[in-house]
Amino acid sequence: MTHKHFIIIGGVAGGMSAATRLRRLDEDARITVLERGGHVSFANCGLPYYLGGVIEERESLLLQTPASLGSRFNLDVRVRTEAISIDRDAQTVLVRDLVTGEETTERYDALVLSPGATPVRPPIPGGERMLTLRDIDDVDAAMAELTVAPRTALVIGAGFIGLEMVENLVHRGLAVTLVELGDQVLPPLDPEMAGPVAERLREAGVDVRLGTQVTELGADTAVLSDGTVVAAEFVLASIGVRPDTSLATAAGLAIGERGGIRVDDQLRTSDPHIYAIGDAVEKTDAISGEQRLVALAGLANRHGRLVADAISGKTIRVRDALGTAVVGVMGLTIAATGWNEKLLRRIGRDIRVFHTHPASHTGYYPGAESMALKLVVDANTDEILGAQGVGGDGVDKRIDVIATAMTGGITASELADLELAYAPQYSSAKDPVNMLGYVALNAAEGLTPAIQWHELEAELDAGATLVDVRTPGEVADGAILGSINIPLDELRARRDELPEGRLIVHCKVGQRGHTAVRLLAQLGREAVNLDGGYLTWRAGATARTAVPELVN
Amino acid sequence: MTHKHFIIIGGVAGGMSAATRLRRLDEDARITVLERGGHVSFANCGLPYYLGGVIEERESLLLQTPASLGSRFNLDVRVRTEAISIDRDAQTVLVRDLVTGEETTERYDALVLSPGATPVRPPIPGGERMLTLRDIDDVDAAMAELTVAPRTALVIGAGFIGLEMVENLVHRGLAVTLVELGDQVLPPLDPEMAGPVAERLREAGVDVRLGTQVTELGADTAVLSDGTVVAAEFVLASIGVRPDTSLATAAGLAIGERGGIRVDDQLRTSDPHIYAIGDAVEKTDAISGEQRLVALAGLANRHGRLVADAISGKTIRVRDALGTAVVGVMGLTIAATGWNEKLLRRIGRDIRVFHTHPASHTGYYPGAESMALKLVVDANTDEILGAQGVGGDGVDKRIDVIATAMTGGITASELADLELAYAPQYSSAKDPVNMLGYVALNAAEGLTPAIQWHELEAELDAGATLVDVRTPGEVADGAILGSINIPLDELRARRDELPEGRLIVHCKVGQRGHTAVRLLAQLGREAVNLDGGYLTWRAGATARTAVPELVN
Repeated sequence: MTHKHFIIIGGVAGGMSAATRLRRLDEDARITVLERGGHVSFANCGLPYYLGGVIEERESLLLQTPASLGSRFNLDVRVRTEAISIDRDAQTVLVRDLVTGEETTERYDALVLSPGATPVRPPIPGGERMLTLRDIDDVDAAMAELTVAPRTALVIGAGFIGLEMVENLVHRGLAVTLVELGDQVLPPLDPEMAGPVAERLREAGVDVRLGTQVTELGADTAVLSDGTVVAAEFVLASIGVRPDTSLATAAGLAIGERGGIRVDDQLRTSDPHIYAIGDAVEKTDAISGEQRLVALAGLANRHGRLVADAISGKTIRVRDALGTAVVGVMGLTIAATGWNEKLLRRIGRDIRVFHTHPASHTGYYPGAESMALKLVVDANTDEILGAQGVGGDGVDKRIDVIATAMTGGITASELADLELAYAPQYSSAKDPVNMLGYVALNAAEGLTPAIQWHELEAELDAGATLVDVRTPGEVADGAILGSINIPLDELRARRDELPEGRLIVHCKVGQRGHTAVRLLAQLGREAVNLDGGYLTWRAGATARTAVPELVN
Repeated sequence: MTHKHFIIIGGVAGGMSAATRLRRLDEDARITVLERGGHVSFANCGLPYYLGGVIEERESLLLQTPASLGSRFNLDVRVRTEAISIDRDAQTVLVRDLVTGEETTERYDALVLSPGATPVRPPIPGGERMLTLRDIDDVDAAMAELTVAPRTALVIGAGFIGLEMVENLVHRGLAVTLVELGDQVLPPLDPEMAGPVAERLREAGVDVRLGTQVTELGADTAVLSDGTVVAAEFVLASIGVRPDTSLATAAGLAIGERGGIRVDDQLRTSDPHIYAIGDAVEKTDAISGEQRLVALAGLANRHGRLVADAISGKTIRVRDALGTAVVGVMGLTIAATGWNEKLLRRIGRDIRVFHTHPASHTGYYPGAESMALKLVVDANTDEILGAQGVGGDGVDKRIDVIATAMTGGITASELADLELAYAPQYSSAKDPVNMLGYVALNAAEGLTPAIQWHELEAELDAGATLVDVRTPGEVADGAILGSINIPLDELRARRDELPEGRLIVHCKVGQRGHTAVRLLAQLGREAVNLDGGYLTWRAGATARTAVPELVN
């Protein structure tokens, strides 16, 4: 009998996971990996850090070589080799060696498409010199430019990868301009969470330009949509990626509404002998159940293994995608999972939103760092729909815990019950995730009605009184215009000073505001808390430009 | 109408959470907190670090004062005040002011017992000068001794708090002897996980004596059970705590089999007007469903809030206890949740056990630290029963994620599907928790049978061959006696060199061993993997004493 032949097109994260798993499941099969680029299994998430000099050796990026994979897993790994076309009826791939130009035809029993996604390039005059960052060839090209020691750089796009590039270019000593079409950095976040990130970038000397596009590139300058000309010797575009569906489309495979290859729950394309994984493929969103493009290495690796199981005849279960992600920017850690508030409000979902500002660990143990956390919850079911975190140490831990809770069907209120590891240098007896649960519980029980930072203006216009329950010392450092100050510890005694009507209460982070609202409600007053307190409000106010409403 | 009177006995973690929550729920109630010690709401988990000088100011430990709580929450907080007895029929407490000696009787509508637990003191000759560490008075006494600048210290008990004390005494420059009755440090861990901790303590100069007791204390020495006399100017006992049930017992309240106050699912004692929370109370174990004593600040705080809800007429749901804990020792982080292997084997549970040795983040990004992770799983249901981690950065994160997964009912195999935040400086595309899931999946599918480090000797005695698939360079740095070495990448070609019969395969951490077992099984050989590889085996071998089986 002849052994089966599996062909995998694309040899990076998902493709190589599929190939090695197939070998572990079937020692006898012939397994061929075709990679258009010059390298397989490289550290694509490390590319910005190699450019920045944080990763010093280029070799560190090359996790495996065709030879090492060949000997360990008996794989036929061919780099600089392109799959030109697929003949589905014949179950063959036309393969071209990009070095020799030689073409061969390979028959497959199962074919895995793992072509990834291509960086989008804004089509502007002079745009040819714009770099993108997808593979080792790209990083070599970028490094060649950087070795000439440019002094100025322009990064287009303030998403996760764009900000990693900004950080690394600053680390190399370049003066960096960051241009973003949207009105905030990090579009997956809500504006009040992204605000402090833009602030940190500006503190680090980055020229952050929001709501702006690049309209033209000169030899060492760029023209922006507001007419400004900025110095830009090194130019990198990071405005997103597009699924590489060329081969799939040419083969007549079904493409989904979001433009990715469509697969069923067994990762099969519309052809039962062709499977697809990774950034080129649409995934099912865990919150909406809709198809979605999510370009994440973790999912590519996981699906690589799963597709090998499916090809081997197992029934697999592909979990819906949350889209958990993290990025480090100038000492800040920013992480998120699930959906954000702005998207959920846009589709009209009935949600509750909570902001907290906990410390990474107990305040009495040295080195605690502050963070801002945000939880978005279905108002009817208490289901966690999304979370965001920005701060120092421990942000990634809390988002990982919340992502796990979401996968486990733990509701927002039940976060209070999670038993998380506590010692003074690691957390607090009430971990920040527990505290989110407490806040969610209070809201679910109707104990403390709250409004969001972006709802304050309308409340004040409608005649509500804003009561600042912080201490006079805190107020002196910055307050919201129009508020009256009665410290929480005096509120019980000074209740008669409060004007008639609806009261909006706020403190620094929301916790004293909660106690104040409970007190006022029991005194018969209509009172609501400003969720997240002064810090969240201020972050929202600074997210786009300046802070006009500040007292000082 | 008269307002209700709630009395809370014990004003630290749980008691004060109950008092403040009661106030937020009922502005009109009279709320009295009785605390025998001199302080309420202090940072008891910070006490060792204050002694070590890591926390510099004593005031940092005092989170709240009676006055601050009084003004904010309108609480009658009485320190140095003891509840002498309870008259359940009359619903009164006899209260004594420990300063003036004055006694009063207070009537309650609901009473909350939160007396905590008392350190156990070994009853040995000379034991009067032994210190324990429970409250601010204890820490003051210990600090008074340390200020005299002793040069030698003895810590009795190598549990979590004992090791925190060792670290802090070393940090102060004392020569420390650690005496532990059991044959390993950190009894909640399994021996191969605790082994590296003892090794680290010894590297830091600590005289670690396992399987040993203190039989007598001299003026500045201690006699050990093996006859040794060790210098011991400063002596601290940390061999566990006993629930403080004196008041409850005297009042005739039901005490459970484990010696803690028995409560129902609404945190009520056997008297419907008396509730109890915190370290004095038995909790329901999340794994076994049995009653158990768990002294953890997080549970005390959580139950403090819940008991206030119960008193206010809500039906509460108290979640069963996992017993998640973490400790930092000489730069190592050690964390655990759920049950360990040795307890589960003792009760005869059918389990699978997995050890991994991942890096905290990608190897190509600087600063990655290694860790050992262990997962214990029900062999029939794939339910996660417990996890342990020892290492550097990120151990607490992984244990928190696993504890959350356990609470959410996520099985071991499903850990592979968790979508955790990944960027090169935070994790790997396959996070260490995902990797545990992959290993569990392989085991659940029967792909890679494995044995544990403690089963190896019996296997070799029974005639199995141990095949080391590491490189010769790795072997030269230490190997298991009697193994034959065929590197993984040569195994396919050199298969004929393998002797007949059952093969035990091992590599450094288990991953290459898995690939080798898959290969050998497909070649028709009976092969099993040594779970956790050389590193886990070596940690087990060194856990108690030396490593006799090492080649060099």
